[in-house]
Amino acid sequence: MPHSPITTLGLDADDTLWHNERFFKLTEARFRELLADHADPDHLGERLLAAEKRNLAFYGFGIKGFMLSMIETALDITERRVDQSVIAEILDMGREMLRHPVETLPGVRETLPLLAERFRLILITKGDLFDQERKLAQSGLGDLFEGVEIVSDKTAATYARVFTSHGTGPEHAAMVGNSLKSDIIPALEAGAWAVHIPHELTWDYEKALPPVDHPRFYAVESLRELVTLFD
Amino acid sequence: MPHSPITTLGLDADDTLWHNERFFKLTEARFRELLADHADPDHLGERLLAAEKRNLAFYGFGIKGFMLSMIETALDITERRVDQSVIAEILDMGREMLRHPVETLPGVRETLPLLAERFRLILITKGDLFDQERKLAQSGLGDLFEGVEIVSDKTAATYARVFTSHGTGPEHAAMVGNSLKSDIIPALEAGAWAVHIPHELTWDYEKALPPVDHPRFYAVESLRELVTLFD
Repeated sequence: MPHSPITTLGLDADDTLWHNERFFKLTEARFRELLADHADPDHLGERLLAAEKRNLAFYGFGIKGFMLSMIETALDITERRVDQSVIAEILDMGREMLRHPVETLPGVRETLPLLAERFRLILITKGDLFDQERKLAQSGLGDLFEGVEIVSDKTAATYARVFTSHGTGPEHAAMVGNSLKSDIIPALEAGAWAVHIPHELTWDYEKALPPVDHPRFYAVESLRELVTLFD
Repeated sequence: MPHSPITTLGLDADDTLWHNERFFKLTEARFRELLADHADPDHLGERLLAAEKRNLAFYGFGIKGFMLSMIETALDITERRVDQSVIAEILDMGREMLRHPVETLPGVRETLPLLAERFRLILITKGDLFDQERKLAQSGLGDLFEGVEIVSDKTAATYARVFTSHGTGPEHAAMVGNSLKSDIIPALEAGAWAVHIPHELTWDYEKALPPVDHPRFYAVESLRELVTLFD
């Protein structure tokens, strides 16, 4: 590329800037343990994922919907004979997730200020509004972003809107994130560039095939590579 | 007032543009019925409100948090011996609320286009991001607003930010809504004008004394009065 066309970076938050899926996985593991007498752990995981997907149209993304889907699955799998301490524990686990300290991923704290010198940074994340605001505030990274967009879903229309209102259009913007389904594919569809930073844990719902042949697609191992990627 | 200083109207959504508290009250009445064998209805209402307030710091505002607080209260009040059909019904009632058709309040559909001719309209609402977006889309009113801000809480800082980024500053903006605590008092604190439209149902949490002597405070009975209020 002779000259970088990129003025604006959109950055996903969960599992791109800080750990997230880890806490869902730990909670789900505990959920499986609690119901081990009633269901095979793999089967329980499938039932929970099915409930989460079914409920997306009502709850959207985030921890509160996850809690409600766990409660529903616990009732279903036991035919409404679940030990009620299990439900109380689901409520406790959810609140625990909602107050868990933010743990930024390696390299994020050093790299984000360097990126902010070169690009307009926009945080683009989905999930519970309240929870995402809490994590951003607690991370101390908020001042590095010129815009924060907490959205209910990440579609091509979302990226077109955000990169137009906050930047100089999708063609001058790159979206950076760990989810092929939410961060990469719709950003490319919107005409933006996309940089995939895989994370070892990714929710099944977010999985997709990487568009390796797309001319505006990059894959890197760490946020650090973004500093020079578009030089 | 010799000349109207107002360029921008901030409009609350729930119980200002469309019914909302009615569905919470109906759901709560059903919740009390379901647990009538375990607790006096008034006491149950107090326990539920206490749980909601306690959980605000975790859940924020909205239906999903309300569902989780009802489940918690049902477990607590029965000492974890609630009939599990009650929990299943709480989940059903919540999903019912989340898909309930939007019912605009009288006068809203006729009046909003008139207001949009005179003022920049900004929707400012709190609650579940996903649910508020759904209601706005379903209302068909979205195109009348130059900005939509779904926020986790409504503070003076919220209004200062929104009326600066979308308008010409709080001193040229009026916030319109039914909640004294969320719509009126913080907007006045931010230096904006405030117009209270009382609604017959208001959540106890949102109640406060009207600042009747404040020079930038108005109270009206219907959104229709806004058309000429600042002439």
